[in-house]
Amino acid sequence: MAADPTTHELIAKHRPTLDQALEAIRTRAYWSPHPEHPKAYGENGSLSAGEGKAAFDALLGGRLAIDQPGTDDWVGGEVSPFGIDLGITYPHADIDVLLPAMKAGRRAWRDAGAETRAVVCLEILKRISDRTHEFAHAVMHTSGQAFMMAFQAGGPHAQDRGLEAVAYAYAEQVRTPDAAEWTKPQGKRDPLVLDKRFTPVPRGIALVIGCNTFPTWNGYPGLFASLATGNAVLVKPHPRAVLPLALTVQVAREVLAEAGFDPNLVALAAERPGEGIAKTLAVRPEIRIIDYTGSTAFGDWLEANAGQAQVYTEKAGVNTVIVESTDNYKGMLSNLAFSLSLYSGQMCTTPQNLLIPRDGIGTDTGPKSYDEVVADLAQSVGGLLGDDARANALLGAIVNPDVKARLEAASGLGEVALASREITNPDFPKATVRTPVIVKLDGARKYWEGADDEAAYLSECFGPVSFAVAVDSAEDAVRLLRRTVQEKGAMTVGAYTTSQEVAASIEEACLEECAQLSLNLTGGVYVNQTAAFSDFHGSGGNPAANAALCDGAFVANRFRVVEVRREG
Amino acid sequence: MAADPTTHELIAKHRPTLDQALEAIRTRAYWSPHPEHPKAYGENGSLSAGEGKAAFDALLGGRLAIDQPGTDDWVGGEVSPFGIDLGITYPHADIDVLLPAMKAGRRAWRDAGAETRAVVCLEILKRISDRTHEFAHAVMHTSGQAFMMAFQAGGPHAQDRGLEAVAYAYAEQVRTPDAAEWTKPQGKRDPLVLDKRFTPVPRGIALVIGCNTFPTWNGYPGLFASLATGNAVLVKPHPRAVLPLALTVQVAREVLAEAGFDPNLVALAAERPGEGIAKTLAVRPEIRIIDYTGSTAFGDWLEANAGQAQVYTEKAGVNTVIVESTDNYKGMLSNLAFSLSLYSGQMCTTPQNLLIPRDGIGTDTGPKSYDEVVADLAQSVGGLLGDDARANALLGAIVNPDVKARLEAASGLGEVALASREITNPDFPKATVRTPVIVKLDGARKYWEGADDEAAYLSECFGPVSFAVAVDSAEDAVRLLRRTVQEKGAMTVGAYTTSQEVAASIEEACLEECAQLSLNLTGGVYVNQTAAFSDFHGSGGNPAANAALCDGAFVANRFRVVEVRREG
Repeated sequence: MAADPTTHELIAKHRPTLDQALEAIRTRAYWSPHPEHPKAYGENGSLSAGEGKAAFDALLGGRLAIDQPGTDDWVGGEVSPFGIDLGITYPHADIDVLLPAMKAGRRAWRDAGAETRAVVCLEILKRISDRTHEFAHAVMHTSGQAFMMAFQAGGPHAQDRGLEAVAYAYAEQVRTPDAAEWTKPQGKRDPLVLDKRFTPVPRGIALVIGCNTFPTWNGYPGLFASLATGNAVLVKPHPRAVLPLALTVQVAREVLAEAGFDPNLVALAAERPGEGIAKTLAVRPEIRIIDYTGSTAFGDWLEANAGQAQVYTEKAGVNTVIVESTDNYKGMLSNLAFSLSLYSGQMCTTPQNLLIPRDGIGTDTGPKSYDEVVADLAQSVGGLLGDDARANALLGAIVNPDVKARLEAASGLGEVALASREITNPDFPKATVRTPVIVKLDGARKYWEGADDEAAYLSECFGPVSFAVAVDSAEDAVRLLRRTVQEKGAMTVGAYTTSQEVAASIEEACLEECAQLSLNLTGGVYVNQTAAFSDFHGSGGNPAANAALCDGAFVANRFRVVEVRREG
Repeated sequence: MAADPTTHELIAKHRPTLDQALEAIRTRAYWSPHPEHPKAYGENGSLSAGEGKAAFDALLGGRLAIDQPGTDDWVGGEVSPFGIDLGITYPHADIDVLLPAMKAGRRAWRDAGAETRAVVCLEILKRISDRTHEFAHAVMHTSGQAFMMAFQAGGPHAQDRGLEAVAYAYAEQVRTPDAAEWTKPQGKRDPLVLDKRFTPVPRGIALVIGCNTFPTWNGYPGLFASLATGNAVLVKPHPRAVLPLALTVQVAREVLAEAGFDPNLVALAAERPGEGIAKTLAVRPEIRIIDYTGSTAFGDWLEANAGQAQVYTEKAGVNTVIVESTDNYKGMLSNLAFSLSLYSGQMCTTPQNLLIPRDGIGTDTGPKSYDEVVADLAQSVGGLLGDDARANALLGAIVNPDVKARLEAASGLGEVALASREITNPDFPKATVRTPVIVKLDGARKYWEGADDEAAYLSECFGPVSFAVAVDSAEDAVRLLRRTVQEKGAMTVGAYTTSQEVAASIEEACLEECAQLSLNLTGGVYVNQTAAFSDFHGSGGNPAANAALCDGAFVANRFRVVEVRREG
């Protein structure tokens, strides 16, 4: 199909970036086209810090206009974890009108082919990138992330994950050629000759069910993987984090229309409080793909009930760090302290259980007892968060009352090694800001003075709560690690050891239980962070998630290939 | 991991073939390393026709020795559709002993890496290829295929599909490098540096549930895709077609052991009559992948109940051929006659519904009425099968009493245009051999004199039964095609038309309903045949099958990638 001028321009503009992304996922070396530093923006059409803030402020209290079919109401009710009432309303859709309308553009989008779809996706990401400062505020005031984290994780890092998904989707679709001539020799007779055409076809409408804490970072991979493989995408944001994905839908529709496609290929499904439309949408026959990030309970429900769809889930897990020995005690403590503190531990990748031998560990500054390690870690966290300004910049705000309730309950689970501290955010006095709590538990103790240690460390306690679990030995730690991953799943595993034998045993456990491992991190990389194009987020092989971001399996079943063959 | 000498030899021996297979799936041009002609065998270590027959005869009435753990009985009871009692018994496994034993070798198999696994699989296929003449008899006397078809479809074509799966599995695993150094610039500070290792890890034990009609052709893709991606594979053959897969298991175990791996990575699950172990095995927690070919009912059950596993199903469909017009009437009739007759229509790809406009069609020999087309087709089938020797060579035997019963019932469904004829096979007088029946139905008629045309043509009638369905127009045919694919699924769609407009409309229907289309076949390629490395078998996008043979999606989720990263 001949590309129209707009498509040509987009290919010329974005093909080099696509090629770099394809190379990056092949080598998995460091690469990103999206600057991390806020000061990198403000030129060449991108919004500066001031412009981004002004754009965000202009959204407050208004309607976010999305001209999509079937709008029967305007709904909204987001209150920032920092205390601002956003007052923004979004179109509420009559899905019996919207879903059929989303099918109208699918043929042209399919016929456009993989390359055109990829560059249209890249143009969407470019326009989002230009508005990173605006998105940063939107992510901050829905997730509760502090500004810098909202900027980076909600901006360039999320855009990277979206681009990564586009690259995988493109690569997967072009593994089969558009056409082939097949000539089969028949001895002395004429050969059999067939002309074959291969077309990637979409599955139908894809549903993205967004989460509260990382609306863009967790939403973009599925959104762009489905769109790039030819599907229409319906975005159902978390009711407390609508704005970042609504803006995304707005940009996507604008780019699609400009490129000559039906904007209804991307639409928004905002909901009334308590409406629970995810459950309704998830079993609609039109919905053939679902990407979900959130609770295990609903993820399991989707996997069991949305049989008409391909379901990709990131649920919850219990992340473990084994602390066995280190040649950089100070580096280990600061690295761990940062991991526990970042975004108040409200990441699906934040370590929860720190397994420490009860007889202590070896370090470069001599042997340390279990109590010393826990006390030193508590001190390290305390030091990191001692200054309120720095604490606010790191912690952000508690995202919802459930997290706060879990944090408050945690101190009753065992001996508190580090108590949570309430911090005031001078810019946002209504924000709930808390430092992490560290609770001592014993891996060998099931019931003790009314406490059930095992029940505590084998449950996910999402939020700024960590357990320093005393274990009998490195072997015992590995045993508990295996059990935790098997039963509860894990998005991340960390370990500190100077013993090659222990390292090998932990590596083997992670290979067998299928969990991603970070070993001996003491510098500026943290177990809870992954980089697109290089690190896999989740493994897809343990109960925490049934897919990884991003690999071939994440994209390969979002489309099918139809072959038309005829005699040549 | 250093390869041992045997592995080196296998790489040297098979890497060129693997590379050719990788190239073939990329270009989808014709390629096969497995000769189709029986006379190509008998040299360089392969069995000649006589040797193959002798090897098969030597198996009859004996135990097929497979030295696998947990054997608690010897079971069997295969009776050839050609009337021979095979009298072969196979190990019956205590699965509580066998399944744990199958895990013992998984670490070494995982650590061997993708290339070694691929060449071990290629060595298994090579040894099977060398015994193609023996396998041909095994397939013939379990499936009821005539010898030449059993030879080709059960031999080289099945081996091609196995090799294709190995190539896809290998390609998928090496998309991520074994290792990467990741260096992220930090402005004036030192860059962040991480050393990353990536390991493809298996899901666990894969279960292959074989079918009666194509034990090797339908069994090999899943078997080799799972084995090549590091999984152990338990093969549960159809109770009436154990021998071809039992021999396959025997060869695989022999090659694995010689290459230094645990032979228990591949094992057999033969069953007692009526034991139904597929249902028990399918929900065992150790089983993480299932490949199934067979009835829709059990395929749907697997998809709904084996939630712990990745489930790949090829179920049943209703295949349609639209006959709208042709510029080669004679070629069309012979092509269709062959398609309907081959293996007595007992292929999942055999056309069932021939949609013909009630006002007739245009041809190169003038317009033909609906009745003429049906009569001419009946005559063409009659002519093709008029000679009993040729009929026997094409039809094979009716595989089981259910097929015979359906054939006999079919003549009651409408006006019989071609009656089924009973043929004697002089070599196998006990074989049930029948020519196809063609029944006239009307697409506009629901109930008529007690018949329910719609119920007939919208049900799968597996076996030598075709319906010549009168439709109002080409448009009506496309409408019925769409409905049939949507509701019943289709492995194949065929069409004859000289109109570009009609062709485009049928193509669009197939793209939207996700069905593989063959247009205007009049020569030596038939709608029911697909060639590995080039044609997709099934689409994975309609109810007939949830996967296609073979594409990225068929292999990508059989393994996961575990990353271990550490500071550099």
